[in-house]
Amino acid sequence: MKAPRGTQDLLPGVTEKWQFVEEKLMEISRNYNYKEIRTPIFEHTELFQRGVGDTTDIVQKEMYTFVDKGDRSLTLRPEGTASVVRSFVEHKLFGSPTQPTKLFYIGPMFRYERPQQGRMRQFVQFGVEALGSADPAIDAEVIGLAMEAYQSLGLKSLKLVINSLGDQTSRESHRQALVDHFSPYKDELCVDCQSRLTKNPLRILDCKKDRDHPAMNTAPSILEYLNEESEKYFIQVQKYLESMNIPYTVDKNLVRGLDYYNHTAFEIMSDAEGFGAITTLSGGGRYNGLVQDLGGPETPGIGFAMSIERLLMALEKENIQLPIKENLDCFVIAMGEEENLLAVKMIKKLREQGIQVDKDYQMKKMKAQFKVADRLNSKFVLVIGETELENNQITIKNMNTGDQVTIDTEQTVDYIKQAIQGE
Amino acid sequence: MKAPRGTQDLLPGVTEKWQFVEEKLMEISRNYNYKEIRTPIFEHTELFQRGVGDTTDIVQKEMYTFVDKGDRSLTLRPEGTASVVRSFVEHKLFGSPTQPTKLFYIGPMFRYERPQQGRMRQFVQFGVEALGSADPAIDAEVIGLAMEAYQSLGLKSLKLVINSLGDQTSRESHRQALVDHFSPYKDELCVDCQSRLTKNPLRILDCKKDRDHPAMNTAPSILEYLNEESEKYFIQVQKYLESMNIPYTVDKNLVRGLDYYNHTAFEIMSDAEGFGAITTLSGGGRYNGLVQDLGGPETPGIGFAMSIERLLMALEKENIQLPIKENLDCFVIAMGEEENLLAVKMIKKLREQGIQVDKDYQMKKMKAQFKVADRLNSKFVLVIGETELENNQITIKNMNTGDQVTIDTEQTVDYIKQAIQGE
Repeated sequence: MKAPRGTQDLLPGVTEKWQFVEEKLMEISRNYNYKEIRTPIFEHTELFQRGVGDTTDIVQKEMYTFVDKGDRSLTLRPEGTASVVRSFVEHKLFGSPTQPTKLFYIGPMFRYERPQQGRMRQFVQFGVEALGSADPAIDAEVIGLAMEAYQSLGLKSLKLVINSLGDQTSRESHRQALVDHFSPYKDELCVDCQSRLTKNPLRILDCKKDRDHPAMNTAPSILEYLNEESEKYFIQVQKYLESMNIPYTVDKNLVRGLDYYNHTAFEIMSDAEGFGAITTLSGGGRYNGLVQDLGGPETPGIGFAMSIERLLMALEKENIQLPIKENLDCFVIAMGEEENLLAVKMIKKLREQGIQVDKDYQMKKMKAQFKVADRLNSKFVLVIGETELENNQITIKNMNTGDQVTIDTEQTVDYIKQAIQGE
Repeated sequence: MKAPRGTQDLLPGVTEKWQFVEEKLMEISRNYNYKEIRTPIFEHTELFQRGVGDTTDIVQKEMYTFVDKGDRSLTLRPEGTASVVRSFVEHKLFGSPTQPTKLFYIGPMFRYERPQQGRMRQFVQFGVEALGSADPAIDAEVIGLAMEAYQSLGLKSLKLVINSLGDQTSRESHRQALVDHFSPYKDELCVDCQSRLTKNPLRILDCKKDRDHPAMNTAPSILEYLNEESEKYFIQVQKYLESMNIPYTVDKNLVRGLDYYNHTAFEIMSDAEGFGAITTLSGGGRYNGLVQDLGGPETPGIGFAMSIERLLMALEKENIQLPIKENLDCFVIAMGEEENLLAVKMIKKLREQGIQVDKDYQMKKMKAQFKVADRLNSKFVLVIGETELENNQITIKNMNTGDQVTIDTEQTVDYIKQAIQGE
């Protein structure tokens, strides 16, 4: 039996990398004063229809939707923002005295797509959401957090691209300009784009099928339609990025796939050689209407999400080795029943002191046990044989130096603790 | 819109407890040399039918089963063992040179049950599985790991109960004895038990409806039917527990709900006053047939699972406060545009050094910002006003002592780092 298509098992040797990366992401989030939120794996389907948008590919084609035994339509979450905002509204977090509410999450998401390199049906996203501030400084903070996440792990081939989608008024003028621009070519566009032309023309710019159509290059840019306020906002974001010494480029064609974005939109990409083509690592932006759409008070918001799978791929493409310790402190070898009883007693005491210890559980011979200790890269081997048992002693071999001592069992924990600290 | 029934949001203030507990569990797992495995949230439904057992309540009544867009029957995992064993077989982990394979997992599980205190439809389990050893010492190690997990967090009202279900031969003699014992009362038992009488009579002992039936007390105990080998095994497990100084009681009625157990079975309970009645925190046992049932080579196994929700409840009932730090290192106050640009620059540098920093993003007045700094329990407040900007300086106020200094901006990071370390 196999794991379902599009999912994967993460095994020892790989999970240590995930632990390292996740710990780093949590540490950075704490430094930025973002707090963790955990929402359920599934939500009422309606949440994503409303919160992600009925016209998006995610909702139309990619959701794991099912009916539970209580006849509810539930959906495995395809992304994190809608759930976080739902939770923010349900628990009235907007009422807490310190605003904005700065949250991060990390966990599995689900989209029914054709599996390919870096795209799984179950994948893990880390993301942040800052709710309750319309200050361009927090747009820069959120972008800065994403950049630091990658840089702190050693990534170098990074490219930050930003754009502004403007406020509602700017978006509407731009929308009309897009309709006017594309309407003459309607019959030449793909079926999806023909429908987008009336429903959400901005997303035509995002279309993979029509991207080589001549009308794409000459399409009106949102930047030409930003009203004064939106333009001022965008300039401020850029000033903050410059002050933080974060390089970026403005790409007027950057459009986020989800319906709820406005003002700042950004993507971080990797142009590491190994990827072949430039690859998006994460994206985010501002969504000032979403909280209200989901039943809360008018509340501005901004956030991003990054795939951990892609992050790990990027580390691989740049040949970055994470500093992961792969060894054991002690391996205990005991021959005979009484010796083994003494061994498990010692082992328990050592582990209680935070020392990593293992032993044989397959009745192997002494020589074979030393081989296992070697394979596990154990710093010390502790031997309890007949003589040691009689004298209530233990023999300790330092596997690096080959040095060997025999000491009283009572002194073992202290001896090992000191030896490890002294390294 | 609300989270689906039986699920919950974990919000800031609570997630820190989860982080603390999970980190502790991972640390202990490492000390015991168990490595993390992560399996998908859903599996082919057949896995649980075969791996958990067709006659169990879990499979018959409680699974979230659905058909995906590719017509696969998938099920959200109701427990961890079947998935871990499936992964062990799929990736041929039995072939790795160091055996047993010692794994731990932590993650959400799903059962459609009536939600009640300590029982959610989505809940989180931590569990370990040791595959490839039939040494009673590893049964004791697994039990010891579970006990240390609770004790290291400060829990005291713990009760360890063990039993042996014997090997296949012992179980069959016992099974026949149970059929003979209960058959005369068949009509007095509940419908489920009437069916269990032929399918799995052991589970009658577990029935909540029939537990007061007089035949329950006089039912033959498995311990009377253990053959020599099974009895010897059980005695060895107890010797190891005694050597490790872990108190336990033998309960001949302890039967685990899942079909695949044999030999050692155990439960850890809390009799903390707040619970009202004694409450099961975790359970586990040996399952020597499961790997083969799921298509792998004959491989003994043992493991346990504990609910994190119950663990946190137990901490609450025993009034245990986890040592969670809830403050901020620095809050930066800047008035004016240029001052704010300097502020974000400083903040980025501080955060890159692992210092926790925040600022206002709501254009609050200075006095209100000091209040926020207070509420966030910030150790230092850094002020960048007009004078500071002109002189390229920054004013640092220690919020504990009230002391205040003004220093060059270039020295800020070093100053704060030293001040925090010196605490």
